[in-house]
Order: sequence, then structure tokens, then C-alpha cells
Amino acid sequence: MPVGTLGTVKGISPTQLQETDAQMILGNTFHLHLQPGELIVQEAGGLHKFMGWNGPILTDSGGFQVFSLAKLNKIDDHGVSFRNPRDGSHIELTPERAIEIQMCLGADVAMAFDQCPPYPATENDVLDASRRTNNWLERCISAHKKTDQALFGIIQGGCFAKLREENAKFVSSFDLPGFAIGGVSVGEPTNEMHKIVRQIAPLLPENRPRYLMGIGTLQEMAIAVANGIDLFDCVLPTRLGRHGTALVGGERWNLRNACFRNDHKPLDQTCSCETCKNHTRAYLHHLIRSEELLGLTLLSLHNITNLIRFTSAMRQAIIEGCFSEDFAPWDSASKAHHTWYRL
Amino acid sequence: MPVGTLGTVKGISPTQLQETDAQMILGNTFHLHLQPGELIVQEAGGLHKFMGWNGPILTDSGGFQVFSLAKLNKIDDHGVSFRNPRDGSHIELTPERAIEIQMCLGADVAMAFDQCPPYPATENDVLDASRRTNNWLERCISAHKKTDQALFGIIQGGCFAKLREENAKFVSSFDLPGFAIGGVSVGEPTNEMHKIVRQIAPLLPENRPRYLMGIGTLQEMAIAVANGIDLFDCVLPTRLGRHGTALVGGERWNLRNACFRNDHKPLDQTCSCETCKNHTRAYLHHLIRSEELLGLTLLSLHNITNLIRFTSAMRQAIIEGCFSEDFAPWDSASKAHHTWYRL
Repeated sequence: MPVGTLGTVKGISPTQLQETDAQMILGNTFHLHLQPGELIVQEAGGLHKFMGWNGPILTDSGGFQVFSLAKLNKIDDHGVSFRNPRDGSHIELTPERAIEIQMCLGADVAMAFDQCPPYPATENDVLDASRRTNNWLERCISAHKKTDQALFGIIQGGCFAKLREENAKFVSSFDLPGFAIGGVSVGEPTNEMHKIVRQIAPLLPENRPRYLMGIGTLQEMAIAVANGIDLFDCVLPTRLGRHGTALVGGERWNLRNACFRNDHKPLDQTCSCETCKNHTRAYLHHLIRSEELLGLTLLSLHNITNLIRFTSAMRQAIIEGCFSEDFAPWDSASKAHHTWYRL
Repeated sequence: MPVGTLGTVKGISPTQLQETDAQMILGNTFHLHLQPGELIVQEAGGLHKFMGWNGPILTDSGGFQVFSLAKLNKIDDHGVSFRNPRDGSHIELTPERAIEIQMCLGADVAMAFDQCPPYPATENDVLDASRRTNNWLERCISAHKKTDQALFGIIQGGCFAKLREENAKFVSSFDLPGFAIGGVSVGEPTNEMHKIVRQIAPLLPENRPRYLMGIGTLQEMAIAVANGIDLFDCVLPTRLGRHGTALVGGERWNLRNACFRNDHKPLDQTCSCETCKNHTRAYLHHLIRSEELLGLTLLSLHNITNLIRFTSAMRQAIIEGCFSEDFAPWDSASKAHHTWYRL
């Protein structure tokens, strides 16, 4: 899922996004609550109509942002209160309120309101956050009344295997349409994240989508998919694009570098996105050097295409029985090399 | 002609630009010489290939920018020398050099190198600039060797009717494929500009396109067309778009205004551009308020569409015999009202 924080995948129009073959995208409950406010979105007929995106949308619950971005005033079993970073006003978020906001936004998938502990955190703090997340899940399920919207549960537990396992069992005990592993990509070492995925993914119901939140790089996604993860969200392709970096196969190219100044080849000769069909590395280098908006748009567009192409290649390789954790189909030595050139 | 200063109409991809029905666009010789340099563009196969625009392109000569943007060191009959605003280095521009650069850029139309006097200026200063522009035109014609590129002459003369007339006669005495009125939109009152257009346009060859440089608003274009002008360039639609302003019919709407916060109608209900087909005023208001790149792109896209639609409506009204200087087809009292709704 490309990330559309404020009801827009940054710098890309819905028409352009469609051409990347992106399917589901993500909207941020916390940000959309602050601006324009969920009532404006509801009045517009929901987030799909508001932003002009006909494909599926998932909204996060705001939990992650409350704990990472906001100046907290108070947190207890009832909920969280914090200062609005835009105007300093007081905002309270509870499981019931987070669900109410998400019902107004009207995405296809809503997420349970969770407490995401930072990394590092003591086992006691993570235990508190996990218990609270579990209690809040029950309240979210009770509050959620929108029958055409799925509600996914979130498993916390930090880097503590025992807590993770307990939480996974608790959350899986509810008959929910999907399950997410949260509290990852919060600063923990990559191998800790891989450990969590390897441990928890197999504990989740096989017939329900499994969502690894806030991940990630192509390599991380391949490892996660090999362990049974189905769904990801990440700002990486658009954030890198806005900084002048292109994802080409498994590499990252800084288009600002002088070596691209007179390189008149298409950005990625194996890619069929609008950027690669119509534009050269020299042109993109020129746009980035000139700080032209179009450079950011064209690189973001290509990066999303590269990511979606990678996930499509993984799906194809799984079907064909040539998928593995070190999936790198652009490598001519890879068994799945042929899938890359067909996509 | 939408303006693509640095080889990009700001914020809009060539694919999006095509959908506005724009035909010819403008590139800036001065800016492209500084970055990326005309040799890079030539290596790429010319400006069309470099920027991925298949339609016609006109490049200005750099004269206007040299006199308005650069720190001049010296100006004499030979040419101009100035400091590169990017790195302080010394650059010399002569008629021969300006033509050489434009031949490298390879646009469909090149412009003669002219001296554009500021407003106000004394009659003596304008006389000097006019004589120099005329001498430079002869040198440009001699230097121009690219047979698949048209060279247009430029008429200067400031706000002095006698000088304008002399210049128009001199420039028209050459069998050039097109003629431009320069030295307008440099700060003179609008009625002075209209006087120049009314006086000079009828003096130019009837069977050659007449180009009014740096104009303008819809009203100014209608007056100019009524007096026989065919071609315009203006940064207005994209500059307004980047500042959150939409051209709707003959009005300018600041989308930042609170009145649009919950206005869920399409931006312009009579327009069929991507922005108006897919997005509401409330969404655009939200994007502008959130400083999202997409807001600037969508407004620029609509503004260019509005401008091109206006010029198409003028053409249609001329054919149907219902065109006049006060052309405002969005007005239901206008005789040409029906043309607006068909376009």
C-alpha cells in the first residue's frame, strides 16, 4: 500500500497512481482528523470520493502517530489525550473515538486503536502497552458498527517473544477479517523485526490477511512474505522520490549525482512506467538539480511502480514455485528472473 | 503557449500537459543555457526528446532574461556580457551565440536576440535599443542555418509610436516565418500595451503568425486577438496554480479561502480537465491548506486547460462570426456562450 497520509499519495494524482497498478492505499486517521477533519471527509461521501481514489483504502487507527508525533498529556486505560500540533488545542483519543473517526472516513479497512511502545522499552512498559492494546481491541470491536468496513486487530509486544506470543493468541481469538503485526519499524534492529515476523506470522489464522505495519524495503518484504505476510505499507518510495532517489531493481540511485548529467538512457530500461517510458536519467538529473516539482513526481511514480512490480513478481514466483527469502528477480542468476521482465 | 522555463511546465508531466490540448509550449534559452546547458540538450536529441514533449516548441532568445534577471557587466553593439546568477562566472551573449544556443536546443521556432528596454525609459534609450535590436536581427538571420527551425523577428520601440512603427517596417521587410511584438508586459500600463498592439499588429504581414510576447490575462488576449495577434506565452496559469489560485471562467478563486472548506462541487462544473472531473473544491482547499504538492499540480493543470479552452473558444467564435474584444463566453449573455459549453 502506497501511503496517502493526508488523502494524497504525495505528488501523484489518482490517475497517475492507477497506472502504477497500485491497489490498496493507506490513509492516516491522525492526520486526516486534524486536517480537514473526518466530518468534511464524511460529507464528501467518504475518503474514496474525497480524494478521487476508486481502489481499496485502509486507514490506520492513529495510535502510532499519537505516540510518535504528538505531545502527550495523559495516557490511561480510558485513552490518550494530547495537544493538537497544529493549534495547541486539547484532543482526546479513545478506542471508541478512533473507530468513530474511521467509520466517518469510510475506508474499506479500519485498524484497532493500539498503544505502540517505543524502542527500546522495558519489559514492564511493553507489558502495560500490550494489555492495554488487548483491552482496547475489545472496545474497538464493540464500537465498530460499519458492516461494509473490515476491522483488523493489531498485535503488539515489542521485542519480547513471550509477550508477542500471548498477544498473538489473544488477538487471533477474535474472528476478525485481518490481523496486523504492529510495533515494528520503530527503531529496533532489522534482525529483531525478522525474529518477530518469523515467530508471529505462523501463529495468525491462515485464511485471513496478515499485515506487517510500516515495512519496508524490498528485502524486508521478501523475508516477510516468505514467512506468510500479505500486506505492507511504507512511505519509502515517495519519501525517497522526494529526495531525488530512484529505486532501480534492488538499488538506490541518487539522481543528483553528476554521473547522470549526460546519461540519456531511460531511468530503468526494464520498467514501463510513465517516467521510464518518457524520460531519461539526464532529464531527471536536470529536474532534481533545478528543484523542479516534476522531478519529485516522476521519481515517486517510478518508485511506487518498482515496489508494486516487486510485489507482483513475488506473487508470480510463489505461483510458479520459485520464491525464496532472498528474492531478487532483477538478478539474472535468480530463478525468478523471467518474472521481472514480464512485469 | 504554456511556459516550460527549464524544460518542464512546472509541476505537470508531458502526459498531463497533452490532455489540456496545449499545442506549442515555450522554453527559455537563458535558463536552459545555464542549466543543463544546450550541449546536454543537443546530445539528448534536442529539447523535444530531452523533455519528452512531442508537440511544437518555441524558445525565446534569452534577451528578455538577460536584461531583466542578470547582473549586467557590459552592453554594446557586439553583444551583452553578464554574470551567471548560479556561479558568478562570466557569460557573453551575442546575436550569433543566442542563435547557436537555440539551434542546439532545436525547438521548432527560435527568436531573434533583442534588447528589451525597461519601462519607463527615455526615448533616446529606447531608440538605442531599437536600432541595436534591428542590427542584431540581421546578424541573427545570417547566423541561423537550421532549415527545420523557423526564426521569428522581434519588434521593439517601447511606448514610442514612431519608434514602434519604424521598427515594425524594418523587421517586416525581412521574409521571416513569423513576427513578434516584444518589450511589452515590462511594467507599462495596460492601456499603453493595448495601444502598441492596435498600432503594430495591422502593420505586420497578414500571412505570417503574430506573437505578442509575455501576455497575458484572458482579457488582454481577447483584445490582442481582435487586433490580429495569433500567439501568446504566459506563466500566469502555472504561477497562479502554484499560489493556490484557480482560473474559473474569467474569475480568480483563491482555493485557500475558508468558503471552499466544505464545498463538495467540482472545481469548475463546466470544465472537463482531470482536476475538475475527479476533484472537488473542498479537496483542493484541503491540499492547498496542507501544502501538498498535488494541489499545485491539479490547479496548474486546470488553469492551463482554462486558458487553452479560452483560446479555442476564440478561434471558434471567429469562425462563427461572433467574436469581439470583450469576449467572455462563460457569460450567459455572450453571443459566444454556446462555444464555452462545447469545449
